[in-house]
Amino acid sequence: MKVSVEVGLKQGVLDPEAVTIERSLLHLGFEGVSGLRKTRVFTFDLEAGDRAAAEASVKAMCEKLLANPVIESYRFTVEE
Amino acid sequence: MKVSVEVGLKQGVLDPEAVTIERSLLHLGFEGVSGLRKTRVFTFDLEAGDRAAAEASVKAMCEKLLANPVIESYRFTVEE
Repeated sequence: MKVSVEVGLKQGVLDPEAVTIERSLLHLGFEGVSGLRKTRVFTFDLEAGDRAAAEASVKAMCEKLLANPVIESYRFTVEE
Repeated sequence: MKVSVEVGLKQGVLDPEAVTIERSLLHLGFEGVSGLRKTRVFTFDLEAGDRAAAEASVKAMCEKLLANPVIESYRFTVEE
């Protein structure tokens, strides 16, 4: 199954990298950029018996390795 | 306009981080994961006169700051 996981900082968590990128864009002459957010996306193939098993497995992967649940939220899609 | 930019390594470029994540998932007991790829996604609002101007601006942002065109490819969407 094709899995796509998107991980990003929770709303309200300070994102200094995003602030820096926005400021850098402005310094490079790109005006009008606001509300920049950065997320990371993992895509992979997963062998699983059925969709429910795959979703449970991906959720556990997120909690244990792919995301930091304290400050990050995640969402994922599983396609057969 | 709502802009979403996805940046990832070009096909064929070695991705040691992805290899490490795959291996770590296996060590954590998650079997059946293959072909893992990691990309980063920037979303932001952009003030622009029209769609063509926005697309030209985003392309320049990618070339100059958001991506490393030597080893990375990018794609973006612009929605009004």
